[in-house]
Amino acid sequence: MGDSKEEVESISPYGLARSTVKGSPLSKDDIEKYNDFFKASLYLSLGMIYLKQNPLLKKPLATDQLKARLLGHFGSAPGQIFTYMHFNRLITKYDLDAIYISGPGHGAPAVLAQAYLEGTYSEVYPDSSEDEDGLQRFFKQFSFPGGIGSHATPETPGSIHEGGELGYSISHAFGAVYDHPDLIALTMVGDGEAETGPLATSWHSTKFLNPITDGAVLPVLHLNGYKINNPTVLARISHKELEYLFLGYGYQPYFVEGDDVESMHQAMAATLEHCVLEIRKFQKQARDSGKAFRPMWPVIILRTPKGWTGPRKIDDKYLEGFWRSHQVPITDVHENPEHLQLLEKWMRSYEPDRLFAGGKISPELKALCPTGNRRMSANPVANGGIIRKPLKMPDFRNYAIKVEKSAVTMEASMSNMAKFLRDVMANNMTNFRLFGPDETESNKLANVYAAGKKVWMGEFFAEDEDGGNLAHAGRVMEILSEHTCEGWLEGYVLSGRHGLLNSYEPFIHVIDSMVNQHCKWLEKCLEVEWRAKVSSLNILLTAVVWRQDHNGFTHQDPGFLDVVANKSPEVVRIYLPPDGNCLLSCMDHCLRSSSYVNVIVADKQDHLQYLTMEEAIVHCTKGIGIWPQFSTDRGEEPDLVMAACGDIPTHESLAAVDLLLQHFPELKIRFVNVVDLFKLISHIDHPHGLTDSEWTSVFTDDKPVIFNFHSYPWLVHRLTYKRPGSKNLHVRGYKEKGNIDTPLELAIRNQTDRFSLAMDAIDRMPHLHNRGSAARETLHTAQIKARNEAFQNGVDPPFLKNWTWPYNGLWKQTVTPKLTG
Amino acid sequence: MGDSKEEVESISPYGLARSTVKGSPLSKDDIEKYNDFFKASLYLSLGMIYLKQNPLLKKPLATDQLKARLLGHFGSAPGQIFTYMHFNRLITKYDLDAIYISGPGHGAPAVLAQAYLEGTYSEVYPDSSEDEDGLQRFFKQFSFPGGIGSHATPETPGSIHEGGELGYSISHAFGAVYDHPDLIALTMVGDGEAETGPLATSWHSTKFLNPITDGAVLPVLHLNGYKINNPTVLARISHKELEYLFLGYGYQPYFVEGDDVESMHQAMAATLEHCVLEIRKFQKQARDSGKAFRPMWPVIILRTPKGWTGPRKIDDKYLEGFWRSHQVPITDVHENPEHLQLLEKWMRSYEPDRLFAGGKISPELKALCPTGNRRMSANPVANGGIIRKPLKMPDFRNYAIKVEKSAVTMEASMSNMAKFLRDVMANNMTNFRLFGPDETESNKLANVYAAGKKVWMGEFFAEDEDGGNLAHAGRVMEILSEHTCEGWLEGYVLSGRHGLLNSYEPFIHVIDSMVNQHCKWLEKCLEVEWRAKVSSLNILLTAVVWRQDHNGFTHQDPGFLDVVANKSPEVVRIYLPPDGNCLLSCMDHCLRSSSYVNVIVADKQDHLQYLTMEEAIVHCTKGIGIWPQFSTDRGEEPDLVMAACGDIPTHESLAAVDLLLQHFPELKIRFVNVVDLFKLISHIDHPHGLTDSEWTSVFTDDKPVIFNFHSYPWLVHRLTYKRPGSKNLHVRGYKEKGNIDTPLELAIRNQTDRFSLAMDAIDRMPHLHNRGSAARETLHTAQIKARNEAFQNGVDPPFLKNWTWPYNGLWKQTVTPKLTG
Repeated sequence: MGDSKEEVESISPYGLARSTVKGSPLSKDDIEKYNDFFKASLYLSLGMIYLKQNPLLKKPLATDQLKARLLGHFGSAPGQIFTYMHFNRLITKYDLDAIYISGPGHGAPAVLAQAYLEGTYSEVYPDSSEDEDGLQRFFKQFSFPGGIGSHATPETPGSIHEGGELGYSISHAFGAVYDHPDLIALTMVGDGEAETGPLATSWHSTKFLNPITDGAVLPVLHLNGYKINNPTVLARISHKELEYLFLGYGYQPYFVEGDDVESMHQAMAATLEHCVLEIRKFQKQARDSGKAFRPMWPVIILRTPKGWTGPRKIDDKYLEGFWRSHQVPITDVHENPEHLQLLEKWMRSYEPDRLFAGGKISPELKALCPTGNRRMSANPVANGGIIRKPLKMPDFRNYAIKVEKSAVTMEASMSNMAKFLRDVMANNMTNFRLFGPDETESNKLANVYAAGKKVWMGEFFAEDEDGGNLAHAGRVMEILSEHTCEGWLEGYVLSGRHGLLNSYEPFIHVIDSMVNQHCKWLEKCLEVEWRAKVSSLNILLTAVVWRQDHNGFTHQDPGFLDVVANKSPEVVRIYLPPDGNCLLSCMDHCLRSSSYVNVIVADKQDHLQYLTMEEAIVHCTKGIGIWPQFSTDRGEEPDLVMAACGDIPTHESLAAVDLLLQHFPELKIRFVNVVDLFKLISHIDHPHGLTDSEWTSVFTDDKPVIFNFHSYPWLVHRLTYKRPGSKNLHVRGYKEKGNIDTPLELAIRNQTDRFSLAMDAIDRMPHLHNRGSAARETLHTAQIKARNEAFQNGVDPPFLKNWTWPYNGLWKQTVTPKLTG
Repeated sequence: MGDSKEEVESISPYGLARSTVKGSPLSKDDIEKYNDFFKASLYLSLGMIYLKQNPLLKKPLATDQLKARLLGHFGSAPGQIFTYMHFNRLITKYDLDAIYISGPGHGAPAVLAQAYLEGTYSEVYPDSSEDEDGLQRFFKQFSFPGGIGSHATPETPGSIHEGGELGYSISHAFGAVYDHPDLIALTMVGDGEAETGPLATSWHSTKFLNPITDGAVLPVLHLNGYKINNPTVLARISHKELEYLFLGYGYQPYFVEGDDVESMHQAMAATLEHCVLEIRKFQKQARDSGKAFRPMWPVIILRTPKGWTGPRKIDDKYLEGFWRSHQVPITDVHENPEHLQLLEKWMRSYEPDRLFAGGKISPELKALCPTGNRRMSANPVANGGIIRKPLKMPDFRNYAIKVEKSAVTMEASMSNMAKFLRDVMANNMTNFRLFGPDETESNKLANVYAAGKKVWMGEFFAEDEDGGNLAHAGRVMEILSEHTCEGWLEGYVLSGRHGLLNSYEPFIHVIDSMVNQHCKWLEKCLEVEWRAKVSSLNILLTAVVWRQDHNGFTHQDPGFLDVVANKSPEVVRIYLPPDGNCLLSCMDHCLRSSSYVNVIVADKQDHLQYLTMEEAIVHCTKGIGIWPQFSTDRGEEPDLVMAACGDIPTHESLAAVDLLLQHFPELKIRFVNVVDLFKLISHIDHPHGLTDSEWTSVFTDDKPVIFNFHSYPWLVHRLTYKRPGSKNLHVRGYKEKGNIDTPLELAIRNQTDRFSLAMDAIDRMPHLHNRGSAARETLHTAQIKARNEAFQNGVDPPFLKNWTWPYNGLWKQTVTPKLTG
């Protein structure tokens, strides 16, 4: 069993170039220049990894010129450089508007080398000037304490894709070209990255790309052959399978394979040119005819050895064309003088003395690069904030839900808000999109279709006319892949536009890691002076945990907030609007903001309405507030604080107040609502945080607080553990224990239903004595009765769902003289 | 712009069956029986969604017999039933060992109907007996409070895949068939699910399946056409593209398309039989020759209308073959008498009176089902715990790292532990596998390759001999997809075997949602009496945040622990072993355990060793402990508690103790180490939790505690906010702020370095007065000096990294007489 010798193939896939597209567009002189440019770039890549001094090897290489800790990835750099530089020829020839996305972003030396050779790097970082000193600093800072990272980080000019976590290059690229009809995103996809799930499905993005209104992505799948320590799947399947796979994904694959540099120059130059012309042909056809269609877009499959142009073997161990060249290609140069010599010889083979005479490359070589904003490292799209235009916003006040009496009418907050979104869309038909994994209609946002339908470039059937809301030119992006939706949105926003992702709450965890990475990108951008602020990434979570009783346990997870709350306070915001007008106010705020990840949690069903628009604006601006219409403390010391955060928790807490007042009309209850979750944390730890005295003025520091929370209760505790009186804070929220239930039963299990909350409150007020015990008994009986009825009928008793605040407006105007007097 | 009428295709893709495989294996009589069985199943599916009474429609259908709240999904049920029942013929004919995986698990009525018709349901739930009363209860409980969910939940006999969150059917299926050479996993993949990233890459699982030692997956891609409100991508691309896509994925696609039931019976029967014979042919070829190879495994592409056999239109709105049939097909039957009639007519078209005469189906129909454990709903593999054999464990004590003096020697804890793993593997060569996303070697676990290499069914190159560690028959599973690794492991464990996933810490967030769902599955299983316990799902996290200074910000995220800590305490365990012997002890414990998700966090670099094996066993069993060898309180009231959780935090805290003792040799410091994170929480909230008095005996309730934590500091606060003296708990851990740095600088930024910890401690002991201030100054100066040196050289000063506990064993034996006396 296992592998036997006979099965081992030993034929190298390399040698003279083999390519689908034939042709020799380059002159002998061109080839020499590209060869020199390639060498110069490769030299820079090795220089970044190894050198802190002697940047041009004017002296013999000695260990004290090396960085003490060698870091960085070389493996993918040659292929990336090769692709980038040959595309430059076409940018100049056809005046292309292009950006470069480095899927294997840890091959940053490739990208940084290009930015340096194009001059952009020295422009934004004058310290890294195009001379020997600048080059030395450029080398040293790479993966050096206080310097820049070994990925295409935000510090990298021209980057909108870091590539630290793999899988998102293609979805980012498509996000960037949607509504940028002239843009081409040249996108390198590593064959390691290609194994990830998010990448594997993102190829289907062409089914959502309109050749009239959108630009194009030119993907280059780089069959580098190896990952960290393994071959890659796609490099070890047959040629035929590879071809089929991409035909199946809807692309026309063009192979470029080999390691003979000279013939590879011709093959790559010819292939890239063919692909650019194909793209332009498709676009012209669609634009001239006004008929959008989905062509077989080109994809290039570039097979070159990992660590190409490096030594094939070192001490009988494979390096070039093997996984050993993945990171630092020769690691023991500090200890092994022979290897140091080998490195020096290798570096000198790139002829730094000839190519960097005077510390910079010759004007002839420089002329291979485009100029100004045509340089991919300088394209404003990749610094999206500078081309970003604020949204033309309709006045959200015009969409107000009429609230004559607080907590009396039920309205559909979400579908009402969708009208606002519809008009945001209508006002901004080329720079705002709504994204969602097949849930936009289910999430009650269908009103938006009046402004923009769902983009669909697949086949159309007659039945689509029956409410399909599909169109070639649409504004809503739906694919059943949270990864792809999020990736598109990130790319769209990073390239200077605006958007919103809507999703069921439980499954947003699918993109935890993507949101984490985006937060880190934003956080880092704040330190990069030349980066202009991009629009916030807005996430609307509906189908919330408290209305997932029927779908059961798998659909109950409000923990995304915990993930977000761990990120830097400078870039994250969380809002839980209690009603429709607050939802409008929060949405308006988020859509206007920049540089944040905003999360809004709001249920999609009909809900009680509490605040007029004017009240909502004040409440949302404050972020937290005492609601006097439901408070009986009349500004005095309360006996009890009932607090809630989230729409359904607010409803239940308020119903609990009603239950309490039925038993204890004299009770001084303060009702508090929290919209902006970070109000709870100290102002020292988050810019939105309350000071301790503000906190005390709301929550007191000695009264029991029954806090009904949307998510896991511990999140509130972690935000408030330092607060005065935090011992009196009793938080109720979701705990993991699932079943098929009614909303009541789900809430009872988590002690977040009105009965439990009221009993909880009574338990915290021992001064109620026997009256408390009696009331508790009554409440418990009522709870059991309601529960039994629900189990009998399969639905909660109507009196629960239909409960409204019974006091005809303000409590103080209606109750016993003692209180109103 | 947009879609114009000309572009709309109106040709229905349905009609008489069209299939790749021709043939008519069924007699006219067979067809009649299958038709009846199909109808009986469809009737049950609708019954579950609608009825709480009148289960056989013996009376006219009236609204009071309907469930008040209509729930459940019908759309995918017909196609699933169709596939399942036709596969039953082959199980019987060829005596196949098979399980069924329902990718679109929300079509649970299909699966439940089969389990009921096969008799399994009544066996495990005698209440749902095969008679009218039982049927009524069977219907009522579906998606009813206190009943079962609308997915293939753990309560479903034969299910190992719930399908609540989509994307994992194929990876679960492959996980189940690895090392089960006779098993076939018939796996329905919804075309919605097929759009997810995890599913899109999991097709490549065949590159890791050995036809000699593993079973086979027979995927059926169900082109149902629609998701919730959208067409599916794969149903709207050309036939040719679909074919190419699967050829590209390495499968031979067999199409079965149509909606004419009779011809579809023949087509499906013939196609499934062909595929089964193909599978057996490939297996025989490999097994007879002893030569493993990767054939083009069969995949069936089944195109039937969504809601097949339902009304095509209702009130001029499309139902069958459209997204409206996704969930409850007719929703307004309570209010609309005509629609109620329509439903009744539809249900009666399935002839319940004839097919369920006497409340159960006829013996002739029953005979279409296999019997005993050959029933897919009764296959023991799908209740993996009952076939699970405990691992043959080597004695982990034999792998002990020799520790003569505590905190003096540096050893490679991880690669040492890998020797233990190697022998676990060697002892269990058919029921233990190690999974990882191309990081096993990088994570210092390469020792395992001596027992089992990496499975690889792609092409082999000669260079693989140079340390490639690839083999057709291996034990290590590596693909650069955390999703696929996790999915395989889940499938492997749920089908009765054992395994471990190793991953970099930062990127484990990629599978947050999968781990969430697995936790929920385990939690639910605890309530299902007939489910036997499966092995724990073990996750080993290395490449931890504190050694990701050089990769920078994107690689720094220890927040997976927060996600896990939110799950039910009944099923989650988190361990942070401080050294090599503790790592061995924890690993041994986790591999022996069942029904948990165990997370072990341990760095892969060389680390200080603290405990002998005997000490480590005691320490890990306690989960938390005072380490007397580093404590100077000698059992008295301490001045200060220094606590640490995690290997690197322990190292730094200990170095801080040394710094403090250099300045204040008389200080009574207590050193506490936490291995088992849930020791921190109250025993009321987690079975591992300490009582408050245990807590106080370790941490005191009034002394300052400087707690150095591996992860985000808030996690400790959320676990401990109720503890006595929690106000004195000062937790240091990772906070979101990144750069390229040295370990020292990363720690300083988070105040987790020895200097910051020591200064922090001094700040909490005002009684040190001026001596404190002076010591603080000295420490601060030392910190700045060390930092500058690091920035200069690119590496931390050696004295930091090489620091060891300087007191020649126990403190109390060596220091000033005052303390030792």
